[in-house]
Amino acid sequence: MQRLDWNALDEAAREQALRRPAQQTRASTAAAVAEIVEAVRRDGDAALRLYAERFDGGAPERFAVDAAEFDAAEASLTPALRAAIDEAAERIAVFHDAGMTEPYAIDTAEGVRCERILRPIRRVGLYVPAGSAPLPSTALMLAVPADLAGCREIALCTPPRPDGSADPAVLYAARRCGVTRVFKVGGAQAIAAMAFGTESIGKCDKLFGPGNAYVTEAKRQVALIEGGAAIDLPAGPSEVLVIADAGARADFVAADLLSQAEHGPDSQVLLVSDDEALLDAVDLELETQLAKLSRADTARAALQSSRSIRVDSIERALEVSNRYAPEHLILALRDAREWLPEVEAAGSVFLGDWAPEALGDYCSGTNHVLPTSGAARYASGVSVASFQVAITVQEVQPRGLLAIGPCAVELASAEGLDAHREAVALRLRAAAA
Amino acid sequence: MQRLDWNALDEAAREQALRRPAQQTRASTAAAVAEIVEAVRRDGDAALRLYAERFDGGAPERFAVDAAEFDAAEASLTPALRAAIDEAAERIAVFHDAGMTEPYAIDTAEGVRCERILRPIRRVGLYVPAGSAPLPSTALMLAVPADLAGCREIALCTPPRPDGSADPAVLYAARRCGVTRVFKVGGAQAIAAMAFGTESIGKCDKLFGPGNAYVTEAKRQVALIEGGAAIDLPAGPSEVLVIADAGARADFVAADLLSQAEHGPDSQVLLVSDDEALLDAVDLELETQLAKLSRADTARAALQSSRSIRVDSIERALEVSNRYAPEHLILALRDAREWLPEVEAAGSVFLGDWAPEALGDYCSGTNHVLPTSGAARYASGVSVASFQVAITVQEVQPRGLLAIGPCAVELASAEGLDAHREAVALRLRAAAA
Repeated sequence: MQRLDWNALDEAAREQALRRPAQQTRASTAAAVAEIVEAVRRDGDAALRLYAERFDGGAPERFAVDAAEFDAAEASLTPALRAAIDEAAERIAVFHDAGMTEPYAIDTAEGVRCERILRPIRRVGLYVPAGSAPLPSTALMLAVPADLAGCREIALCTPPRPDGSADPAVLYAARRCGVTRVFKVGGAQAIAAMAFGTESIGKCDKLFGPGNAYVTEAKRQVALIEGGAAIDLPAGPSEVLVIADAGARADFVAADLLSQAEHGPDSQVLLVSDDEALLDAVDLELETQLAKLSRADTARAALQSSRSIRVDSIERALEVSNRYAPEHLILALRDAREWLPEVEAAGSVFLGDWAPEALGDYCSGTNHVLPTSGAARYASGVSVASFQVAITVQEVQPRGLLAIGPCAVELASAEGLDAHREAVALRLRAAAA
Repeated sequence: MQRLDWNALDEAAREQALRRPAQQTRASTAAAVAEIVEAVRRDGDAALRLYAERFDGGAPERFAVDAAEFDAAEASLTPALRAAIDEAAERIAVFHDAGMTEPYAIDTAEGVRCERILRPIRRVGLYVPAGSAPLPSTALMLAVPADLAGCREIALCTPPRPDGSADPAVLYAARRCGVTRVFKVGGAQAIAAMAFGTESIGKCDKLFGPGNAYVTEAKRQVALIEGGAAIDLPAGPSEVLVIADAGARADFVAADLLSQAEHGPDSQVLLVSDDEALLDAVDLELETQLAKLSRADTARAALQSSRSIRVDSIERALEVSNRYAPEHLILALRDAREWLPEVEAAGSVFLGDWAPEALGDYCSGTNHVLPTSGAARYASGVSVASFQVAITVQEVQPRGLLAIGPCAVELASAEGLDAHREAVALRLRAAAA
């Protein structure tokens, strides 16, 4: 990790210090994805077969997972893994359920009742990647809130394994949450299939989930095409910013940095501290722990574009964090809770020494599908609300119209919208009669 | 309006019946907008001056509205208009305030506290169009929730009038809601300026508000560019769907259809009824009311692409509506409230005979910035939440880690993420020691 002294940096250097690893989609990726999207939109399942042969080493007879495969998957898991999936699902459900948006109604004037009602998005598509490893946790993070929202048609796509089967833990997690329309399709072609529909996979209104650069680019493209699908979040490489004080444990901090760095060579980790000795100790710990890590090469690559930043105070560290707007923010501080009010933009925050980011990734109860690349400045992580629409309602009695109608007439006149004015004025005359 | 009998239509004809007027941005619009966006990004205020001279007939000395212009604007309004703006703002605030997302905290396990906290988006940009008419109501619909959210930096752009001043009603509405950074800049250049920042106008994180095809295309483009800005909603021409039964008043229904049709030639209105006589009566009323309308040409153009659809039951009418997912839905039904549970997708719903859409446009209290073009299937209208981010938080005690850590270890092992596992396992060992 590159060591920087924030105070010694000018504005341009600070900007540079917080720059993410280049995220620009290479033109070749965009073009390849556009071709896939167009082919799937045009040829449906036939195109999915073609790409399965090209990318997955063969197309399954049927893309849809059948009951037998679900049963076999469940039977193949160890009891410990089943129990862990159950436990995580339960805790995620508890947290997400408690935060659901409520309908409400209020009389804004006598005889004028205004309301907000909630509806599930009818058709949603979940993408569960399985690039370097299958991600049953992602299946939970998407399927639990979709289920709580009450979505009626939930499709889930996940890439097939070399033997043509789907990952059993992903299948177990999905069915546990009531998702049985699971398709063994991966990559950009899965996104295109859910956005436009094929013979096997019904069209979805909104797509969710992380993925590699191809999946991300496909989501971007289908969200732009008329008749495509909405998407949850602008996705990008995962990232963490750790603020640590002199009392933080260097081994804990290093472990948290590495658990982010192992995601991919384009992951970014930032460490900010007011204590030089802590920064030094973390550097040493990183080397020690890297030596024992299976994905050390990936982590080392990510650390290359990562920085440890010396600041003159924890207050300054929070400023740096708010400017960066990290996906994950760990406050490894003695008085972490006291600093929480200063957090302006982050996906998910971890307070103190005993809340490693990995808990949030799996089973604290919060969601791990979070805004990356600075999107935490304007976007939130996935929640039940991501799977719902809010509809406003107004119910007006004649006396309500008489009360607020003149205000509408005045404003419609000011805006020169005569028909708006008349729609109210006509009723005012009728109600007064 | 074209009359159709839903039962007599095959699937393709039904699809056609609910098709919006062509929304494809013409390539020439996209290219012109791309040039403007690039120029503003590169040249800042200089580009804004250039476009003001080209499109607005001259650039103001300063884009920012000063206190003197605000004062003069306020003084120039009639007391009745000031009172109407005040009254609408108050009612909008009451409704939006009551629906604000609440922070919450819950122990998902003993020693594991999970929370959601809310933060205002720091820098937001509001666009208030003034094409065919100034829209003080839009200033209220954006500024009231931005103010309630607590956004610290609120910019508002609105096109200058021919004499170089801003519309006084828009200025009064803005300042009333605490928005004083108002800039006399319109069109695609205003969107680009707020997305990237210029010498006069600071960069914004998220942009809000409706606009013409150029504004809409500019929002689409800046949302795509790395370093641009997020946007509120995919915007499109305004639309209403009215479901009316035999007991509905044809004059009310016709007035509501016209108040939508006068927005623009690309607006769309749909009338769905199980009563042929009502459809006939509305046709007649449309002609009568059109004869008295100042914007009759615009409304007539919109009616050309509009339809009145005969269905065999109100239940079927709701099916048609859910499939169309209208921005505005008027239930001109004797038992409107009983049908509300059947509404799956709509921006805002108006129950009964005495709730003209124009009330929602101005002063019932609900927001009038709503999803169009079928986006109501997956998106909601603007609310306070649109101006906030939700951040999740977890605070874990050592006993909490001991309780849920093993679950994370099991899942991290299944996913092959060793560093994730170690970040938890290391702490488990420390906590047990």
